[in-house]
Amino acid sequence: MHSSIRIKTIAVLGGTGREGRGLALRWARAGYHVILGGRDLARAETAAASLREKLDSIARISGALNLAAAEQADVIVLAVPFAAQLDTALHVRSALKGKILIDVTVPLVPPKVEVAQLPGGSAVERLQAVLGSDVAVVSAFQNVSAHHLADLDHAIDCDVLICADDERAAQTAVELAEAAGLQGWRCGPLKNSLVTEGLTSLLIAINRRYKVPSAGIRITGVPTGAH
Amino acid sequence: MHSSIRIKTIAVLGGTGREGRGLALRWARAGYHVILGGRDLARAETAAASLREKLDSIARISGALNLAAAEQADVIVLAVPFAAQLDTALHVRSALKGKILIDVTVPLVPPKVEVAQLPGGSAVERLQAVLGSDVAVVSAFQNVSAHHLADLDHAIDCDVLICADDERAAQTAVELAEAAGLQGWRCGPLKNSLVTEGLTSLLIAINRRYKVPSAGIRITGVPTGAH
Repeated sequence: MHSSIRIKTIAVLGGTGREGRGLALRWARAGYHVILGGRDLARAETAAASLREKLDSIARISGALNLAAAEQADVIVLAVPFAAQLDTALHVRSALKGKILIDVTVPLVPPKVEVAQLPGGSAVERLQAVLGSDVAVVSAFQNVSAHHLADLDHAIDCDVLICADDERAAQTAVELAEAAGLQGWRCGPLKNSLVTEGLTSLLIAINRRYKVPSAGIRITGVPTGAH
Repeated sequence: MHSSIRIKTIAVLGGTGREGRGLALRWARAGYHVILGGRDLARAETAAASLREKLDSIARISGALNLAAAEQADVIVLAVPFAAQLDTALHVRSALKGKILIDVTVPLVPPKVEVAQLPGGSAVERLQAVLGSDVAVVSAFQNVSAHHLADLDHAIDCDVLICADDERAAQTAVELAEAAGLQGWRCGPLKNSLVTEGLTSLLIAINRRYKVPSAGIRITGVPTGAH
């Protein structure tokens, strides 16, 4: 195994949203210090307080404005709606230098969210291009439903597909998948994120046709020992 | 359930290749008449004979030139290498009118087959546009390894993702997935095939990193009854 970084503090930008809250909850349970970032301090603090209630008193979750959250963290997770992806990343850019940014954004285009719409390639490649090479961007967690993340009593029957050009960033995402109780898979370069981003639309199509709340995916054919 | 067509004869174009042979083997075992289509009659007949040896004497598999195979079939399966996709489809076009074409083609671009390269959208959408609206094209089976298909003694731990704009074509692919011993999932319109085509590159990336022959995928979160 390659080494990842020593993660202490994770900032989840868009941490007041459902996906962000779900990831934050699981990482705090695993012992990380998690800062929910938001555009409104009071809302971020309220969201953090509601997550603390779900965990034991030792869990560390706080709320902050997005920029302050990113400044305090080793790893920054971008879990905002697609429309806010670039703006939020640029807003906190000064705090990202030399750090790892995990992009969870899914480029859904309402109202046809069940149709994959990626004419210009993956959203995360565009993000990496805008941020430049001193931020290591990794794509992960797009296919894990917020619904499942929020339910701490059940194991999640869904894997995490990880695409990255940077080795350390990829391994960090593997570590954080495991910390959330999920199996992370290294799926090649950032360019392959086109597939993992689009896969969310296919899962939405499956949800609608088969009338289920949150279909997921599993990778098969790899023995546990190979991991 | 929506009704599919009454399938009797399936032509597998590119039936001398590994993926085509594997699908043909499973469909013949399920009782369909399967015609392996090829560019060389002798090779197609030899491939058919070798598959017949794997099955009991009642199985019907024959070999033919691609055009003759397509003419005799209710459903045509395109399992040629990506570089031959459009040429083969255009060659048999006269035999496709009013029929269903299942496209199994994966747009891998050597040597970087582990990188999804779909700059202009999905390969199957281009195919549908070239063939016109009197052929119902459906995308399926891209992620199922030939390795697994050829091994009749083992259940395949991989699902079939199906993308189609035509309802009857989609249901036909579901039926043929089941006949091959696989679970087929309706994943939305043909446009979503961008994801299922690209997913093959991610599975190749996983094969390489984790040193396994053929990783696959499963859809989770849908109870059997919902299907």
